[in-house]
Amino acid sequence: MRTEIIFTQEAIARPQAWNGPVGSETGSLVEFYGLIRETEGEEKIAALHYEAYASMAEKVMREKIAALEKKYPCQAIRIVHRLGTVPVGQSAIYVGIQSRHRREGFLLLQEFMDEFKNDVPIWKIK
Amino acid sequence: MRTEIIFTQEAIARPQAWNGPVGSETGSLVEFYGLIRETEGEEKIAALHYEAYASMAEKVMREKIAALEKKYPCQAIRIVHRLGTVPVGQSAIYVGIQSRHRREGFLLLQEFMDEFKNDVPIWKIK
Repeated sequence: MRTEIIFTQEAIARPQAWNGPVGSETGSLVEFYGLIRETEGEEKIAALHYEAYASMAEKVMREKIAALEKKYPCQAIRIVHRLGTVPVGQSAIYVGIQSRHRREGFLLLQEFMDEFKNDVPIWKIK
Repeated sequence: MRTEIIFTQEAIARPQAWNGPVGSETGSLVEFYGLIRETEGEEKIAALHYEAYASMAEKVMREKIAALEKKYPCQAIRIVHRLGTVPVGQSAIYVGIQSRHRREGFLLLQEFMDEFKNDVPIWKIK
């Protein structure tokens, strides 16, 4: 699967322009934006801060994607993770997946996000 | 839930600019594009044609959304369905969902799409 992983200190655009072409056998594009909410736990916040051990984070993400791809064959994935300060209402992460049918795209994206918080060395700081 | 349903003869933009604001308690935006593939069954196609009984299709979609919303409370949904000729590589449908957490957004979108083909009076013609 074509895999692109990007870290950025800039705001993630919404909508995100995914430059990757859509193949003639792509039937589904699923895109997810994880946004900062004003209420974190029971506390009001203005922003969260993200730091990463970026090379290791990319390595772990690529391993997770390679494992998930065996269950859910997809065509392409693009992940953009913002680092630094992310204000309320803005995106910390964007994930886009192209696949033949929507089922595998949705399942890969959901399982990737469920696993993401466990092992990827990206830290969220209030 | 804020619900917007649009039929259009124009190409659905990718990325789609969803003008609806993201609330300060929106943590997830999930977007889906259903694209025309070159292979339909075992046949090569150049395009599909869509026709709708639009007022009834909107009514049925709103009923489905109202039922799904009870299981998966979300904040806003936007559906754009293209009618007329849709060439390979272009989108027949766009669905965007804003929700507090990603789980309910993903589940509502998937169940909506699973149910969509059954009862909504939109016809796909080769």
